[in-house]
Amino acid sequence: MTTPLTIVGSVALDTIETRAGKREEILGGAATYIAFAAGVFTPVNLVAVVGDDFPKEYADLMADHGVDLQGLKRVKGRTFRWAGRYAEDFSTRETLGTELGVFETFDPEIPAAYRTSGFALLGNIHPALQLKVLDALPKETFVAADTMNLWIDTTPDALAEVIRRVNLLIINDEEAAMLTGELQVRVAARKIIEGGLEFLIIKRGEHGAYLFTREAMFFAPALPLDEVVDPTGAGDSFAGGLMGHLAGRGEATLDAIKTGMVYGAAVASRAVEAFGADEFAKLKRAEVDERVGALVNLVALP
Amino acid sequence: MTTPLTIVGSVALDTIETRAGKREEILGGAATYIAFAAGVFTPVNLVAVVGDDFPKEYADLMADHGVDLQGLKRVKGRTFRWAGRYAEDFSTRETLGTELGVFETFDPEIPAAYRTSGFALLGNIHPALQLKVLDALPKETFVAADTMNLWIDTTPDALAEVIRRVNLLIINDEEAAMLTGELQVRVAARKIIEGGLEFLIIKRGEHGAYLFTREAMFFAPALPLDEVVDPTGAGDSFAGGLMGHLAGRGEATLDAIKTGMVYGAAVASRAVEAFGADEFAKLKRAEVDERVGALVNLVALP
Repeated sequence: MTTPLTIVGSVALDTIETRAGKREEILGGAATYIAFAAGVFTPVNLVAVVGDDFPKEYADLMADHGVDLQGLKRVKGRTFRWAGRYAEDFSTRETLGTELGVFETFDPEIPAAYRTSGFALLGNIHPALQLKVLDALPKETFVAADTMNLWIDTTPDALAEVIRRVNLLIINDEEAAMLTGELQVRVAARKIIEGGLEFLIIKRGEHGAYLFTREAMFFAPALPLDEVVDPTGAGDSFAGGLMGHLAGRGEATLDAIKTGMVYGAAVASRAVEAFGADEFAKLKRAEVDERVGALVNLVALP
Repeated sequence: MTTPLTIVGSVALDTIETRAGKREEILGGAATYIAFAAGVFTPVNLVAVVGDDFPKEYADLMADHGVDLQGLKRVKGRTFRWAGRYAEDFSTRETLGTELGVFETFDPEIPAAYRTSGFALLGNIHPALQLKVLDALPKETFVAADTMNLWIDTTPDALAEVIRRVNLLIINDEEAAMLTGELQVRVAARKIIEGGLEFLIIKRGEHGAYLFTREAMFFAPALPLDEVVDPTGAGDSFAGGLMGHLAGRGEATLDAIKTGMVYGAAVASRAVEAFGADEFAKLKRAEVDERVGALVNLVALP
């Protein structure tokens, strides 16, 4: 049975430079990409914070795409801003500026109406905040969490508790190596799962993503594209598409997660073809289904 | 109908250093890895050259594995030697020494007995030599060629002629970008195919390999491993497993090539688990089939 997906994370204004050009203060933030990605499959509840400078048109855009904004706090101050530049081949990116603004004191509160949601995705916020959200969610919620290298370095204990308490952890290969000291993705995965985790996804950017459980291993390739304009939000869109698919199905079995990863890859392939989440918001279900078909064909053996 | 595979390329003595250790003057060379990989599937004809210092035990090892050595010239001088060191994560390697020895004046001659072979794989030798071999092979031979960045820089015209004349080109993503000036693998592939090529494989190391034709695109992932000891010969083993599979089947249809790439990936996954081609030679068909099963499961959707 379809249930809404609750998303906790950042909404931001991004200034981005890639080989395709430069855009200033466009709509960004992990929670924003996740919301638009998941919104293709299921209703979305957003828990985030913006400043009083956040453009009304962006809030309207979210509302128009069926994102419930009861959990979006608008407080006095500046919206989180991030500026970065990608290398020509997109293999690396350089942060040119980070202004946390109101995100610095973000204290996520889950509105009572969101407690009926059976699925939640916690963006890469401070692990202590992820734990607070975990306390606030009904115990039966299927929770996925993202993290980032910063928390691995600075708050490893809180992060370890997050990993023990969530159902699905989504990280990239570099973070998996940092967490475990293991360079082989399969060995790193085993160590993380042994710590007490049911599902682990390790993303490898343009190469695809692995799923690991105690017994199973699965790989969802990324779709090769003619042009990449802006990779910002690709990983978030992948996670949003996956979790949106699960919430839309109302189940989080191994099979559902495998299929959901292909949906996630399809959605992510659209996110990187334009600058900004406002462009990405135009994503249609038919386009997603077409790309899922291409991804299935990509690895189909005779 | 099974036919032998004719291989033209290098036989070498490698000195290799990786995070797993160091080995001196072990059996290496592209043609050696290709021969052992393909030998799992079909009889192999080897066209190569070694010096009078080439250990008899290595020649015996090849013969014991069913490699026909009529085309292996033994001449006065030193065998080709290569020395290199891999970064801890295997993302890069540094060449510490190259001594071409008798390989510098290698002039491949195809023994008359090899002309019944319906399949040939040309290692990354000078494009002028690849053209000479193409002239010597019966016209109906299905020919695959490998190349390297050096020839893209130094002999682009001869290389372009090789590409026009072979059936299948096998390169890596960096070489595809060098050949075309295109960073997106799909766009680079389209440009190369438009120049007049039926099948193009672009390898991406530990991430897998793409197949492109005018109409089709296929991806064969690599198998995640618990430990990598020495990546030397991985790409050659992949190509050898693929071409061995095709020669063993006696057909080179699109479907056969897709399946062959999975066999190639399975074989390559074994090549990197030990130092040197002599260890790799122990590869058994049952192990390959088991890994093919794992690779099929890796991307199998519910």
